[in-house]
Amino acid sequence: KVNGDRLWKRLMEMSKIGGTAKGGVCRVALTDEDKQGRDLFIKWAKETGCNIDIDKIGNIYATRPGKDNSKPSIMIGSHLDSQPTGGKFDGVLGVLAGLEIMDTLNDLNIVTEIPVEIVSWTNEEGARFSPAMIASGVFSGDFSLDYAYERTDKEGKTLGEELERIGYKGSMEVGNRPYKATFELHIEQGPILEAKNKSVGIVTGVQGIRWYDLVLNGKETHAGPSPMEYRKDPVKALTEILPQIYRLAEIYSPDAKVTVGYIDAIPGVRNTVPGSLTMAIDLRHPDETVLSMLDKDLEHIITSHDGKLGVTSTLKEIWYSPPVKFSKECIDAVKNAAHDLKIPTMEIVSGAGHDAVYVSKVAPTSMIFIPCKEGLSHNEMESAKKVDVINGTNVLLNAVLQMAGI
Amino acid sequence: KVNGDRLWKRLMEMSKIGGTAKGGVCRVALTDEDKQGRDLFIKWAKETGCNIDIDKIGNIYATRPGKDNSKPSIMIGSHLDSQPTGGKFDGVLGVLAGLEIMDTLNDLNIVTEIPVEIVSWTNEEGARFSPAMIASGVFSGDFSLDYAYERTDKEGKTLGEELERIGYKGSMEVGNRPYKATFELHIEQGPILEAKNKSVGIVTGVQGIRWYDLVLNGKETHAGPSPMEYRKDPVKALTEILPQIYRLAEIYSPDAKVTVGYIDAIPGVRNTVPGSLTMAIDLRHPDETVLSMLDKDLEHIITSHDGKLGVTSTLKEIWYSPPVKFSKECIDAVKNAAHDLKIPTMEIVSGAGHDAVYVSKVAPTSMIFIPCKEGLSHNEMESAKKVDVINGTNVLLNAVLQMAGI
Ligand SMILES: NC(=O)NCCC(=O)O
Ligand SMILES: NC(=O)NCCC(=O)O
Repeated sequence: KVNGDRLWKRLMEMSKIGGTAKGGVCRVALTDEDKQGRDLFIKWAKETGCNIDIDKIGNIYATRPGKDNSKPSIMIGSHLDSQPTGGKFDGVLGVLAGLEIMDTLNDLNIVTEIPVEIVSWTNEEGARFSPAMIASGVFSGDFSLDYAYERTDKEGKTLGEELERIGYKGSMEVGNRPYKATFELHIEQGPILEAKNKSVGIVTGVQGIRWYDLVLNGKETHAGPSPMEYRKDPVKALTEILPQIYRLAEIYSPDAKVTVGYIDAIPGVRNTVPGSLTMAIDLRHPDETVLSMLDKDLEHIITSHDGKLGVTSTLKEIWYSPPVKFSKECIDAVKNAAHDLKIPTMEIVSGAGHDAVYVSKVAPTSMIFIPCKEGLSHNEMESAKKVDVINGTNVLLNAVLQMAGI
Repeated sequence: KVNGDRLWKRLMEMSKIGGTAKGGVCRVALTDEDKQGRDLFIKWAKETGCNIDIDKIGNIYATRPGKDNSKPSIMIGSHLDSQPTGGKFDGVLGVLAGLEIMDTLNDLNIVTEIPVEIVSWTNEEGARFSPAMIASGVFSGDFSLDYAYERTDKEGKTLGEELERIGYKGSMEVGNRPYKATFELHIEQGPILEAKNKSVGIVTGVQGIRWYDLVLNGKETHAGPSPMEYRKDPVKALTEILPQIYRLAEIYSPDAKVTVGYIDAIPGVRNTVPGSLTMAIDLRHPDETVLSMLDKDLEHIITSHDGKLGVTSTLKEIWYSPPVKFSKECIDAVKNAAHDLKIPTMEIVSGAGHDAVYVSKVAPTSMIFIPCKEGLSHNEMESAKKVDVINGTNVLLNAVLQMAGI
């Protein structure tokens, strides 16, 4: 069994990097804080005796050799980047649990049959650079390296530039590393496990996600003398479009999720009718067919309003992550582990995307969830119980050992 | 009569300061560009022989002495600051027309009975620091100097700091300068004069304005795993609130104006349900009673939604500029001037606020409008015809001379 205190201490130490006044974390991808987090992880990983590799998209691989290092290894993957107003557990738990497993194997003088590897993926959150999970997507071949390098943040900086700036553009090619199995431990980020009083969730798959940019174009004009009927006001167009977008969640209730996380009127001045309005739409559903229907309905809403009130609209899908079902073999390994450890579990489908989604396309993969308080995540108040952190890590250890062989 | 070419040349030269690629102007209050614009104006004003004073809020007074300088003078006022995506005429026309009048009086060797003064007011637009017309409001005693200094922009910089930074915090007390009459020449910023084919508008008053900040507070959470019914989503609350806000314009049609110029979801990340949303609301009406009804209705909309969908709301009125009726004497001076010059005119109520609103509280005041293309203002495409610029300036000259005496 793992050393819960050692793991918890590392979690708390890492949370100081980018730590916020409200107790959260701001360690956004490819910022100085991300660099500090990476540096600390590498320092710790070297202390456990791991070898470090960094690939061209900045993914960090910390490998603990096994008896036969010519064979595919077992991956423990997750991410160190956070939301701008994120918490202490989202992502970082899965990476530091990997370190704790290395230390536990060292404590017990265990040499596994095949190598065990921690992978810390670049820019999982997608908060700064869209889409999310981009580096695991390059790893799986879903995105090209150039596509990833060219992603820009709101200030126009590219992912490639920023990766270079913080010194994490490695030399190793991305992908083409074979794995026998891969596991990701993560907080649930939703309220189900807590409500059902389960310490561990056996994640059988991940719902599908579609991301859109919507731009409404009107005409900038003065808020005072311009008669209402003469205006081309994109915010007024919202009064018709926005309720219809949210209605989609009711039509496809209860599983459809609809979120408008970003909305900005331009130029954004009190006494000017905005010339344009940009917003981000996030649609999710576990069923691919229903998610396609949501997509068609959204497109219909937007096209049927195009030109109304003098406002034109452009809807652009910028990311599609189809629903994923994880490997039966990996799911069973997690189930067996939890059963052996007598931890109360339930099967669950992930509402959030994870690097495991892309990794699952090139290697047998599954995930382990633990509850988080009130289901809160992407929030500085995000919190998880130490007992669940320990349970989840023990399940991870046990599943890894089943596949790695002692 | 004024020299239209000289005036037009100055307008075009000034528009290079902060000139944008689209042919507009970005010379926002108390930026480096504002400083350059002020410097150029002072250079020109000194060349016409005017004396320069600068008061503690950065208003610039350029005075042409008359025969009796102990008597109250005639003021020609407007502003040099622009919207971030503003045009070549809004404000600057009224200031440079003043310079042209000084030059014309010099050309004709006219010494007026009493002094004539150009005043360039600080931060008329209110685009960076709310409220608008703040420095003429300090002049009239409606705002204290400290209140004005403490206004902050979106980056947290104060008006006082920025005034000092650009070197325009003068030593002269604000206000307490007596004026016999004051005039402001401005583009209409609406479509009426153009539609009615009138070169000059006799402005009889200004409609009332109420500015609000609305904050909707929900709870930040993940866009994926959080069930819809469990969310406290301020953007979803907008789907109910926003249509009702715009409905106010229909209820009090055709004179009510409703604008939401600024809207921002925080933290503004695609895969996070926003924790809060801030927006600016601008309500206008020429009738004080109706504007009060709009205010009550808006408050009712917001309070009746407070708590719905788990979203709390705070509505704060941050500015009220009551409807204003200008001085009969000054209106008549403008009317007579236009009549003598045989320029087609009509009476008009201003939809925009102007420095003349506050100045009218402490001195007899009126305004002169000229048409602008398609009624467009607060837009880089803002444009005005040279013939109307010249007509407006001739009417201004003539009205000023009626009051200043030759
Ligand atoms: N786990 C997580 O927050 N992933 C980001 C991708 C998503 O939006 O689901
Ligand atoms: N003229 C002008 O644009 N004034 C700004 C104040 C307002 O919003 O009306």
